[in-house]
Amino acid sequence: MPDKSSEQSLTPFGPARSSFKDAKPLSDDELKLYNRYMSACLYLCLGMIYLKKNPLLKEPLQLEHLKSRLLGHWGSDSGQVFTYLHFNRLIKKYDLDAFFISGPGHGAPAVLSHCYLEGTYSEIYPNISQDVEGMQRFFKQFSFPGGIGSHATPETPGSLHEGGELGYALSHAFGTVFDHPNLIALTMIGDGESETGPLATSWHGNKFLNPKVDGAVLPVLHLNGYKINNPTVLARISHEELEALMIGYGWTPYFVEGSDLDSMHQAMAATLEKCVTEIRGYQKQARDSGKAFRPRWPMIVLRSPKGWTGPRTVDTHNLEGYWRSHQVPIADVATNKPHLELLEKWMRSYKPEELFDENGTLVPELRSLAPEGNRRMSANQVTNGGTVRKPLRMPDFQDYAVDVEPGVTEVSSMSNVAFFLRDVMAANMHNFRLFGPDETESNKLGEIYKAGKKVWMADMLPEDDDAGNLAMEGRVMEMLSEHTVEGWLEGYILSGRHGLLNSYEPFIHIIDSMVGQHAKWLEVSSRIGWRAPIASLNILLTATVWRQDHNGFTHQDPGFLDVVANKSKDVTRIYLPPDANCLSSVMNHCLKSTNYVNVIVADKQPHLQYLDMESAIAHCSKGVGIWEWASTNPDEEPDIVIAACGDVVTKEALAANALLRKYLPDLKIRFVNVVDLFKLTSHEHHPHGLTDPEFDSLFTADKPVIFNFHSYPFLVHRLTYKRKGASNIHVRGYNEKGNIDTPLVLAIRNGTDRFSLAIEAIDRMPNLRNKASMVREKLRNEQIAASNYAFKNGIDVPDLRDFKWPYGSPGGKADSNIKETVGNKVGKNAQAPPAAAVIGASD
Amino acid sequence: MPDKSSEQSLTPFGPARSSFKDAKPLSDDELKLYNRYMSACLYLCLGMIYLKKNPLLKEPLQLEHLKSRLLGHWGSDSGQVFTYLHFNRLIKKYDLDAFFISGPGHGAPAVLSHCYLEGTYSEIYPNISQDVEGMQRFFKQFSFPGGIGSHATPETPGSLHEGGELGYALSHAFGTVFDHPNLIALTMIGDGESETGPLATSWHGNKFLNPKVDGAVLPVLHLNGYKINNPTVLARISHEELEALMIGYGWTPYFVEGSDLDSMHQAMAATLEKCVTEIRGYQKQARDSGKAFRPRWPMIVLRSPKGWTGPRTVDTHNLEGYWRSHQVPIADVATNKPHLELLEKWMRSYKPEELFDENGTLVPELRSLAPEGNRRMSANQVTNGGTVRKPLRMPDFQDYAVDVEPGVTEVSSMSNVAFFLRDVMAANMHNFRLFGPDETESNKLGEIYKAGKKVWMADMLPEDDDAGNLAMEGRVMEMLSEHTVEGWLEGYILSGRHGLLNSYEPFIHIIDSMVGQHAKWLEVSSRIGWRAPIASLNILLTATVWRQDHNGFTHQDPGFLDVVANKSKDVTRIYLPPDANCLSSVMNHCLKSTNYVNVIVADKQPHLQYLDMESAIAHCSKGVGIWEWASTNPDEEPDIVIAACGDVVTKEALAANALLRKYLPDLKIRFVNVVDLFKLTSHEHHPHGLTDPEFDSLFTADKPVIFNFHSYPFLVHRLTYKRKGASNIHVRGYNEKGNIDTPLVLAIRNGTDRFSLAIEAIDRMPNLRNKASMVREKLRNEQIAASNYAFKNGIDVPDLRDFKWPYGSPGGKADSNIKETVGNKVGKNAQAPPAAAVIGASD
Repeated sequence: MPDKSSEQSLTPFGPARSSFKDAKPLSDDELKLYNRYMSACLYLCLGMIYLKKNPLLKEPLQLEHLKSRLLGHWGSDSGQVFTYLHFNRLIKKYDLDAFFISGPGHGAPAVLSHCYLEGTYSEIYPNISQDVEGMQRFFKQFSFPGGIGSHATPETPGSLHEGGELGYALSHAFGTVFDHPNLIALTMIGDGESETGPLATSWHGNKFLNPKVDGAVLPVLHLNGYKINNPTVLARISHEELEALMIGYGWTPYFVEGSDLDSMHQAMAATLEKCVTEIRGYQKQARDSGKAFRPRWPMIVLRSPKGWTGPRTVDTHNLEGYWRSHQVPIADVATNKPHLELLEKWMRSYKPEELFDENGTLVPELRSLAPEGNRRMSANQVTNGGTVRKPLRMPDFQDYAVDVEPGVTEVSSMSNVAFFLRDVMAANMHNFRLFGPDETESNKLGEIYKAGKKVWMADMLPEDDDAGNLAMEGRVMEMLSEHTVEGWLEGYILSGRHGLLNSYEPFIHIIDSMVGQHAKWLEVSSRIGWRAPIASLNILLTATVWRQDHNGFTHQDPGFLDVVANKSKDVTRIYLPPDANCLSSVMNHCLKSTNYVNVIVADKQPHLQYLDMESAIAHCSKGVGIWEWASTNPDEEPDIVIAACGDVVTKEALAANALLRKYLPDLKIRFVNVVDLFKLTSHEHHPHGLTDPEFDSLFTADKPVIFNFHSYPFLVHRLTYKRKGASNIHVRGYNEKGNIDTPLVLAIRNGTDRFSLAIEAIDRMPNLRNKASMVREKLRNEQIAASNYAFKNGIDVPDLRDFKWPYGSPGGKADSNIKETVGNKVGKNAQAPPAAAVIGASD
Repeated sequence: MPDKSSEQSLTPFGPARSSFKDAKPLSDDELKLYNRYMSACLYLCLGMIYLKKNPLLKEPLQLEHLKSRLLGHWGSDSGQVFTYLHFNRLIKKYDLDAFFISGPGHGAPAVLSHCYLEGTYSEIYPNISQDVEGMQRFFKQFSFPGGIGSHATPETPGSLHEGGELGYALSHAFGTVFDHPNLIALTMIGDGESETGPLATSWHGNKFLNPKVDGAVLPVLHLNGYKINNPTVLARISHEELEALMIGYGWTPYFVEGSDLDSMHQAMAATLEKCVTEIRGYQKQARDSGKAFRPRWPMIVLRSPKGWTGPRTVDTHNLEGYWRSHQVPIADVATNKPHLELLEKWMRSYKPEELFDENGTLVPELRSLAPEGNRRMSANQVTNGGTVRKPLRMPDFQDYAVDVEPGVTEVSSMSNVAFFLRDVMAANMHNFRLFGPDETESNKLGEIYKAGKKVWMADMLPEDDDAGNLAMEGRVMEMLSEHTVEGWLEGYILSGRHGLLNSYEPFIHIIDSMVGQHAKWLEVSSRIGWRAPIASLNILLTATVWRQDHNGFTHQDPGFLDVVANKSKDVTRIYLPPDANCLSSVMNHCLKSTNYVNVIVADKQPHLQYLDMESAIAHCSKGVGIWEWASTNPDEEPDIVIAACGDVVTKEALAANALLRKYLPDLKIRFVNVVDLFKLTSHEHHPHGLTDPEFDSLFTADKPVIFNFHSYPFLVHRLTYKRKGASNIHVRGYNEKGNIDTPLVLAIRNGTDRFSLAIEAIDRMPNLRNKASMVREKLRNEQIAASNYAFKNGIDVPDLRDFKWPYGSPGGKADSNIKETVGNKVGKNAQAPPAAAVIGASD
C-alpha cells in the first residue's frame, strides 16, 4: 500500500477526532494481517475496474491488459472494505449473525472483493475460481457486456440492496432485522446518500425497533467528504453539530476518523467491539428482563479520505481525498503512458505477490481472517431471503365471505378484508407485518390491531395502549413517511418474510421510484437461478380518487398504475376488485404469491356488493368476465357493452345500465367487469393478457364499449390500442381538472355521472340516437336536477349513494321496481350545474 | 374561551419547558387583546367547519344552521392561529416583510380566519364582506360545493403552499427567501409532516442560505403530538434529544411549551422577538461587514395541545390534546343533541358578541392588532409571485447557434446550451438560479459556473473555490436531494423568480408527486383571476436512459413523461429536441413561458446535429415536421414513414434510414421528427395536438410508420390511439428488461438496433417482404457480426458511434459514399448475440 507520510487534513475544522484514538486492541501481527487483507481487497477493486488480463501483474502492465472501456467506482471502496474487514473479526470472536448493506452501491467492488476472498463467489459461480484464471474472469466480467453490473446488483452474493438509487440503505436495514432477533445489519451509509430525504428520516427507525424481539442495525455513516462533484453537507459541519444530530436522531455516535492506516485499524477494531458489546448488552437486558425499552443504539461515523490509499495527486490534481476519485480514478491510462505507469506502481504497492500464492489463491493466513460458512456476510441466508422464507399459514379466505344479493347488499370491502388480514397476522406472528403511513385505522383496517398493535418504542402516555393501540411488541408499522414504511417492507420481504403496505392512493406517487427500483431488483433476481423467490411486494391502495371529494384536488391521483404498468410484465400485477368477496380472493392470491409487485386498488367506504364468494372466485380467476345478471341478453350479441374496472366506477356503470334498461327496454346490453387490469392487453405484452379472440368474445370487435375506469382513461387505451375494436372503446375515467377542486364537486359529479354515461351510450349508437332523443333529454334533465339539488344543499347526491340494482339476479331477491330518482323528486326547475356538466366527458 | 383549570401534561417525560417561561413582554391589556383576537380566529375556524347560517350565534344553535356535510380540520388551527397572531405584533413593531407558510395545509381555517380578519379576503372577494352576511358566506363556502377547499389552496390569499401533500413546507420556504434579502418566511411545520423524508432533510437548507443576500426562514415546529391516528415521533422523544436534533441540523432551537393561554402568549411573544432580533442581527452583521457566514439561525419548537382550547373530553373520550381533534372535532352534532349543545357552548365560550360588532365586523381594538396593507402576511406580494415577477433579460439564443452539416456535425447539445444558460444567468443575477442534485458538472453544464458558482455556506477547504466552484454568493443550488432542490425551485418561482432544474432522467421519478402537486397548483391558479402568472417550472432531464448502459438497469427509467402526461393539458409541455439548435430554441421558449411544467429531455454526450438555427426554429415552432433532406421523395406519398422523437433515437432512426436507402434505393422513405410530444395527440386532448388532417399529412393515414421513441413505447400509443393510421404505427422504445442490465449491453443494443429497425421496416411492408428477403438476411448478418464484435471486446458499437448521414442535404456537404459497417469488417463468422436479438423488438 502506498506510504502515508503524514495524516491528511480531513476536515475544514481541525484534526480528526476518533472516539477511541488511543485504543490498541490489535497486536502488531494482527495489524499486519489486517493491512494485508485490506490490500488484497483493494487490489481486487482496481483489478475489476482496469484489467481483463494479467490479473496478478506477473508481467509488466501493458495496454492490452486493460479493458477497452473503463467503468466502476473507486471512491468509497476503501472505507467499505475497511469496515467489512473489521466486522469479520467480531463475527468470528462472538459468532455473530450479520450481513452487510452497501448504501453507496456504486462501491460494489468493495463488496465483490470480500465476497471473492471469502470464497462465496466461487461457490456460486464456480467458473470464477480461486486461482489466476478465476481472478482474471472475475476482473473481466465486472462492468463488461454479459458480465455483472457496477453496483451491488442481485447477481452479487450477500447483497439484498443494490444501491442504484440512493436513500434506502437504512430503511432496508431495519426491515431485515425486524423479527430476526439475532441478526445485525452492518449498514454503510454514504454521506452523499445521507442528504436524501428518505435517508434523513430513516434514522428514526430506532423508535420502532424492539431489542427484545428484533435484531439490530449498526449504521456506519461514511464521511468520505465528496459526492460526484461537491463536498457533502455532513462532512462540512462541525464535529459538535454532527454529534448532536446523531444524538438527536436517538443514536450514540462513535467516531473513527483519520487516514493513517495503523491507527485507523486500531480505532475501528475498538469502536466496532464497543458497538457490538452495547448491542448485545441492550438485547440481553431486554430479553432477560422481558421488558423492552428503546436503547440509544450505537452508530459509527467513519471519516476517511475518498479514494483512500490511492495516489494523493495525479499531475497537479488532488485525487485521494477529493471528488476526482469518485469513479475510475485515473481514466486516461490507455492514452497517457505516465498515468499507466502510475497505475501499475499503485497496484503493485499493494504487493499482490505477498497476498496470493503462485496459483492466485489468497494465502491461508489471510483466508483465516474471514468467517466460515454462513457466518460469512456474503453467504448470510437472509440476503437470499427466499431460502429462509416460510409460506404464510393462511386461514381460508372463503370463511370471510359476505352474503351477497347482487347490486343490493352494501358492505365496506375493506372492513371485511380486515378480518381476514387480522387472522393472517394472528397465524403468522413472527413473519408477517402490516405497514402504512398513519392510515391503517382511517383505511378501515383497524380490526387488525386485535391481532397485533402498532409498534411504538418512543415514549408513551397511559392512554396509548388501549385507546391508541400502541405496543412495544406490535405487528403494525406506522410512520408518516411512505419512504420509510416502504423501505421497511422491502427489507422485510427481501430477508424472507411477508407483508402488506396500505396507503392512500393519492400519495403513493411519493414512492414511485422505490417501487420501480424494487421491480427492477425482482426482474433481475427472478432470472438468477440461485436466488429463491421472495414474497411479493403487496400494495393496497385506498382512499381512492373517487372518494377524495372532501380533501380536494391535491388528493386525487390514480396515476400510480401507469408507473407500475411501465415495469416488467414478468413482475407486475394490478387488481381492481369490484367488491368484498373479490377483494378477499385477490388478497389471498397476492399474499401467497412470490416475486411480484401486486397493486390492489379498493375503496374503503361501504358500497354495493355484487358477487357471492363462489362467483367472486370464478370472476377473479378469470380476471375479467361478463356479469350475466347485469346483462339483458347474456347469450346474444349486444348492442352495446358497458364495462367497468374499479369498485366505485362499477357501481356507477351499473346505475347507468339500470337507466338505459329502464328507458330503452329493448336495448341489448352486456355488462363486463375487469378485475385484473392486464387482461386488457395482449397476451404478447403481458402473461395475463387475453388473446384477441378472447378479448372480442367479451368486448366484441365492433360494438361500442363504454368503459368506466378507475384511473386516467389513457391507461385503458394504451393497453387496448391493438384490439380490433379499439376505436369503439370509449373510456370514461379521471381527468385532471381543477374545477373539481372544491369539495364535494367530485362527489356530485360521481353522483350524476351515470346520466352522462347513459347519454354517451346512446350517442355512441348512431342508429339509436334520434329514436332515443326523448330519453336523452329526460336523462339530461334528471341529471341537472340532481346536480343542482346537491350543489344547493352541500351534499353528495343521495340518489347514487342509495342506488340498488333493481333488476334482480339469478338467485337474488331484488325486485324490479325502479325507484324514482332524486332528479324527479326535486322537480324540473333545473339549470346546468357549474361543473358537473363539463367534466368527466368521455375522451 | 373555555377555562383551563390546570396545565395539561403535554409530554410523557415531565413538564413543559419554555425557553422564556418567565418573560412578560406583554401588558395585561395586551394579553387580553391577544386572547380576544385568538378567540375571534378560533371562532371563525369552528364557524367554517360547522355553520352555514346564524354565523354570530345570535339565535340558539339549531340543526338547520349546520352544514349537511361537515368537513375540515381543527387539530392544528389553534397553534397556527397563535403563531400567526404573535408574528403580527413583530411585523408592526419592526415593519417586517413577512409571510406565512402553513405546512399542515389541513389547518387552512387558521390561515383563512386571519386572512378574513385582516380584511384581505374581502378585498379580493368583495362578496365575502366584513359583516354578518359576509361572514355567513365565508363560513358556508368553506368545504362546500362551488366554494373553497379545506387546504390553503390557491384560492387562499397569502398562500403559496397548499400543504395537501406533506413534506415541502421548509424547502418551499427557503426557495421564497433566496434573493429576497428582507423577506421572512414564517413556516409552520407539523410534527406529522416532520416525519416525512423530504422535510427531514430540508432542515439542511441553512447550509445554502446567505445572510448577506438572502432573507430568512423562521421555522416553527408545531408539536401538537398527534397525526391522524398516532402520536408523532418528535413529540415522543426527550427534550434533550429534540434539542440535539435541531442543533445538529444547524439551528438554535427555542421552546414554547404549554397550554395555559396567558403564559403561552408571554412565552411566544418573547421567543418570537428573540428570533426576529437574532435574524436581523445576523443579517446586519453580514451586510455591514460584507462578509457572509452561516449563522446558527433560530427556530421555534411550539408544543401545544392538538385541538387546543377545545373541550378536554367528549363523553369519555379525550378530545383536546388527542388525535380525535384532528379533523371535525365533534362529528355527530346533527344526530346527538347533547353534542350539539356542547358545540354551542364551546363556540359561545369564545364570546363572539365581544369580538364582532352588531354588523359582524371585528371590533376596532382587535382590528388594529393586524398590520396594514401589504405588510399583512395574507397580502404579501410574494405570495402572488406573478405580481412581482420581472421577465428574464434574455440574450438572443440564436447567438449560440451551432454550424450544422445535417447528420454530419457532432456536438454536445448540452455543452452548447450551457453557454446560453451561462449568459441567461449573468443577465439575471438576482432572479434566476439553476438547481440540481449534484449533477450540473456531470450534465455538462459546468460552463454556467463562470456566471455563478455553487452556493455553499457550510465549512470550506482552500481548494473549494477554484477547483470546486463553490462560493457563498453563488447562483447554482446543489444538494443530493431531488426533493430539496425541487422544493427550492418551486418556492423560488412561486415567489416571482425564474429557474431551471437539471437532473438525471432515471431519478426524476423521486419527485413525481412533487411535480404533480405543483401542476395541480398551476392548474387551479391559472383560473383564478387575481393570481398573476408565474415562471414555468422548467425541468431539464439528461443522463437519459439510452446512455445509462454503464450504470445499468437501475439507472434506466424514462417514465417521468407518463406521469407528466397525466396532468392537466393546460399546464404540461414535453419537449425532446433532437439537437443543439433545437435545444437552444426550446430552452429559450421554456424560460420565457409562464404557468407551465416544461419537461425537456436531451442527451449530454456529443452526438449528431441536424438542423441549422433557422431550420431549428422553424422545426421547434411547428413541433413536428418532415425532414426533407432525410427523405427520399419529400413531395410524394411515401412507402414508409420513419419517425423519431428524442435525440439518441433520432440518430438511430437516421442510421436505419441510411441502411434502407442503401439496400433498397427505390423505396420512398419519409423521415419525420417530433420535438413537441403533445403534437401526437388530438388537438381536443391537448392545445398542442394536431388535427387529424395535419397528423395524416405527416404520418399518412395508411402507411406503416416505424416510430423510434425515447421512452416507453406505450406513451406514443396512448397519444395516437385515435388516429386513423393508429394500427400502422409501430413504436420502438424502451422496455424493462433486466437482461440489458449488464454494462454496455444497452449500448450494444443501441449500436445495432438500426438493423432491427430497418428489418422491421421491411417486415411492415408485406409487398416488399419477399422481394427484400436477401436484404433482410444481409442486415441480420451485419447486426450479428457487429454485436458479437462489441460483446467480445467490451465496447459499444463503434459503427453507430461514428455514423454520419451519407446522403448530403440541401446546402450540406456530406458525400454519398456509404461506409462499410463494422459488421462487414469483422466478417461473417457470426452468431446471435446473447441479448441484442431479443430485446427492443417493436411492440
